[in-house]
Amino acid sequence: MNSKTHKTAVVRCEHFNSAHRLHNINWSPEKNEEVFGKCNNPNFHGHNYDLEVKVIGFCDSETGYVIDTKILSSIIKTSILDVFDHKNLNLDVTYFKELIPTTENVARIIYEILRTQLNETLELKIKLYETPRNYVEYPN
Amino acid sequence: MNSKTHKTAVVRCEHFNSAHRLHNINWSPEKNEEVFGKCNNPNFHGHNYDLEVKVIGFCDSETGYVIDTKILSSIIKTSILDVFDHKNLNLDVTYFKELIPTTENVARIIYEILRTQLNETLELKIKLYETPRNYVEYPN
Amino acid sequence: MNSKTHKTAVVRCEHFNSAHRLHNINWSPEKNEEVFGKCNNPNFHGHNYDLEVKVIGFCDSETGYVIDTKILSSIIKTSILDVFDHKNLNLDVTYFKELIPTTENVARIIYEILRTQLNETLELKIKLYETPRNYVEYPN
Amino acid sequence: MNSKTHKTAVVRCEHFNSAHRLHNINWSPEKNEEVFGKCNNPNFHGHNYDLEVKVIGFCDSETGYVIDTKILSSIIKTSILDVFDHKNLNLDVTYFKELIPTTENVARIIYEILRTQLNETLELKIKLYETPRNYVEYPN
Amino acid sequence: MNSKTHKTAVVRCEHFNSAHRLHNINWSPEKNEEVFGKCNNPNFHGHNYDLEVKVIGFCDSETGYVIDTKILSSIIKTSILDVFDHKNLNLDVTYFKELIPTTENVARIIYEILRTQLNETLELKIKLYETPRNYVEYPN
Amino acid sequence: MNSKTHKTAVVRCEHFNSAHRLHNINWSPEKNEEVFGKCNNPNFHGHNYDLEVKVIGFCDSETGYVIDTKILSSIIKTSILDVFDHKNLNLDVTYFKELIPTTENVARIIYEILRTQLNETLELKIKLYETPRNYVEYPN
Repeated sequence: MNSKTHKTAVVRCEHFNSAHRLHNINWSPEKNEEVFGKCNNPNFHGHNYDLEVKVIGFCDSETGYVIDTKILSSIIKTSILDVFDHKNLNLDVTYFKELIPTTENVARIIYEILRTQLNETLELKIKLYETPRNYVEYPN
Repeated sequence: MNSKTHKTAVVRCEHFNSAHRLHNINWSPEKNEEVFGKCNNPNFHGHNYDLEVKVIGFCDSETGYVIDTKILSSIIKTSILDVFDHKNLNLDVTYFKELIPTTENVARIIYEILRTQLNETLELKIKLYETPRNYVEYPN
Repeated sequence: MNSKTHKTAVVRCEHFNSAHRLHNINWSPEKNEEVFGKCNNPNFHGHNYDLEVKVIGFCDSETGYVIDTKILSSIIKTSILDVFDHKNLNLDVTYFKELIPTTENVARIIYEILRTQLNETLELKIKLYETPRNYVEYPN
Repeated sequence: MNSKTHKTAVVRCEHFNSAHRLHNINWSPEKNEEVFGKCNNPNFHGHNYDLEVKVIGFCDSETGYVIDTKILSSIIKTSILDVFDHKNLNLDVTYFKELIPTTENVARIIYEILRTQLNETLELKIKLYETPRNYVEYPN
Repeated sequence: MNSKTHKTAVVRCEHFNSAHRLHNINWSPEKNEEVFGKCNNPNFHGHNYDLEVKVIGFCDSETGYVIDTKILSSIIKTSILDVFDHKNLNLDVTYFKELIPTTENVARIIYEILRTQLNETLELKIKLYETPRNYVEYPN
Repeated sequence: MNSKTHKTAVVRCEHFNSAHRLHNINWSPEKNEEVFGKCNNPNFHGHNYDLEVKVIGFCDSETGYVIDTKILSSIIKTSILDVFDHKNLNLDVTYFKELIPTTENVARIIYEILRTQLNETLELKIKLYETPRNYVEYPN
C-alpha cells in the first residue's frame, strides 16, 4: 500500500461567538413563537460556535501534507471568522438577511463560502457546534 | 448550489447513568470470567453513557431545520432516558433480559427503538460512549 | 478524622446562552471602541456560558449530602437560567441596564442572586466560563 | 524568589467505573424514595468517576518533582482503583457497608485511604466527578 | 432487523507523547523554513497525540462484541505505544527516517502497522489528533 | 455587598507545544534512567502544554474588568508563547539550561516571568497541564 491508494482527511478546528435569532419573516409572531420558542427572542441570544473544517484529498509526497493547516486556518480566518465572529448573524451578515440562521443554514453557508476558496480536487465537509450538545454536519 | 442538493446531519447529545454486567447465561462462570474479566462482576458496575443521536435529511426551507432538536430531545427522553437512566440494564431493561448489554448491543437497541419514532425519510445513526475512551457507532 | 472535621465543596455545572454587548454609557463611542473593541458591536454578539456553582459546608451524616444537587440545580434554574438563558443580557436582564455585562460582573450578579437563596451556613463560589479559554471566579 | 518560597500542587487524574445506590438503612422506603429519588433504585445504577488527586508540597531541587507522578499513580492504583473499579460500591467495598456512597462520602473515604499512604509533609486534596456536571472537593 | 444486517464500529482511544520535526532532506534550509515554519525547528518540538482506532465489523452474537476492547487496547500498546510514546519520531522510529512525520504520515503508518494485526474481515480507520485543534483521519 | 468587598479571579487559557527531556546533569545515566524512566530519552519527547494564567484583583467599576483579557493574552504571547512554543525546552529556552524542565519547574518559571509583567496589586497563579491527566499549580 502507498499513500496514493487512500485519501486522508485533515481537520482544522476554529470558533466564533455570535448573536442570532430564529425568525421567519413570512410567519406571524404567534407561529414564530410556536416553532422557535425562546430562540425567537426579538432581542437576540448568542452562542460560542465551534467549527470543524474537514478537507479530504491525497497526501503530497514532498510535504507530507494534504493541505498546510496554517494556510487552511488563514483561509477560514479571512473568509469566515472576520465575517461571523463577534457579530449579529441576522443584522451584520448579509447571507442571513433573509435566510434563518439555524445551525443547518449557518453550516451550509460556511460550506459554500469555503468551497470557492479551495482547489476543486479537495473534498470539503463542515461540522458546526451551536452548543456542546447540538451540532450539524454538511454535506452528509 | 441550493439546500436541496445535499443532506445535512443534525446531532443531539444526551447522557444516562446505568449499572450493568457482561454475562453470557449459556457459559460457565469460568468462561464468563475468562472473556469478560472484571466486567463480569456479579454485583454489577456502572457507567455514565454519552449518547449522540444523528438524524440525516434535507433541510426544510421554511424552518431551516432538518428536525427541531427540541422535538428530537423530547423523543430521546421519552424513549431512551426514561427507560435506561439510573437503571440496571440487566435487571430493569427488558431488552437485556437475554441480550448481553455490551456497548455494541446497547447502541443497536437504542437505534431500533428510535428508528420506530422517526419519519422513514430520515436516516438515523447512533454513537454511544461507555467511557471517554471506548465508544461504538451503529449502523456503520 | 471524621466527617465533621473538614468541610466539603459540592459543585453543580449548568449553562446558558445569551447575547451581550460591552459598552459604557458614560463614554464616547471612540473610547468604547478603543477599550472594548469588537465586544462593543452595537448589534450584540453572544456566548454559551458555562456556570459552576460551588457550595461549601459540612456533610450531613443522615443524607451524606452537603446539599442535594437536585435542589441546588432547581434553585439555579429558577433564579438564574430562567432569567439569563436565551436572553440579551443588556436589554432583557434588569441587573445590566446600567452595569456592563463583563464576565466579572455577570459572575458577581449570579453570586448575589444565589447568595440570597442559600442557607447562611453554606459558603458560595461562582465560576463562569464566557468561552472555553476565558473564565472568572467570584469571590476569590 | 526561589523554589522554596512557595509550595506547588501536583495533580494526577484517574478514573473508575462503579455501580452504587443511595439508601439510608435507618429510613423507610418512602423516605428513601423521597430524599434520593431515582438514585435509590434497589437494582443500582452506575457512573464513570473521574478522580483528581492533588498533592501539595515543596519542589525537590534535585528531581524537580514535588512527587513523582508515576509513584503517585501507582499508589492510587493499588489503594483506590483496585478496590473501587468495576465494583458495586455498596456490596463490594467495605467502607460503604453502612456509609451511604454519595459523592461527598466517596471523596472523603478516598482522602482517608490516600492520607495514610503519603508523607505527612505533603498536603492532600481530592476532587471527584460523579458526572461531568456534578463534582465534589474534599477537604475544602 | 437483526444484528447481522448492519456493521458496528468500535473505537478505542489511546495517547502518546512524542517529539518531532518537519523537514524534507531534499530541500534547502530556506525552503524547509518557508514551508514548515516553526515546525522545522532543528531542536524539535512535541505533542500529546490522541489516537482513536476504529474497527468495523459484525457483532458476535455470543460475546456481544465486534472486538474485545481489552484485546484491541493490548494490540495498540504493543504495536504503537511501545514504539511511539516518549520517543523522537524522527530519530527513534524507523518509519520516519526518511518519511516526514506530519500528522497525515503518522496516521498512515499507524494504519499500516495495525492493519497487519487485525483479522481481514474487520475494517480499520485511524483518527489522530496532533493538537486539540488539528487532526487527520485515514483512510477517508 | 458591592464589587469592592471581594476580589475576582480572571483566567486566560493558552497553549504551547514543546519538546523536553528530564535529566539531572549531576547524576549518572543509571540514576537518571532509574528516576526519570522514559522521560529521560536522550532524543527528547514532547507535549501539548495547556496553560491557565489566573490574575486576581478588584474589578474596575468603569470597565467591569479586573484585567482586559486581550491585554493579558498579549502579555502571555510575548513573554511565554514566543519563547516556549515549538521549541525544545532544554536546548532553546535559557531558563532550562541547568534547571530540569519538569512541569513543576516550567510552571514556576512561567510564574516568575509573568510576575514581572503585571501590576503588583494583582495576584498571579499558574496552572499548567503537561497531559490531560497531569497538571501542576504554582504557587499553591
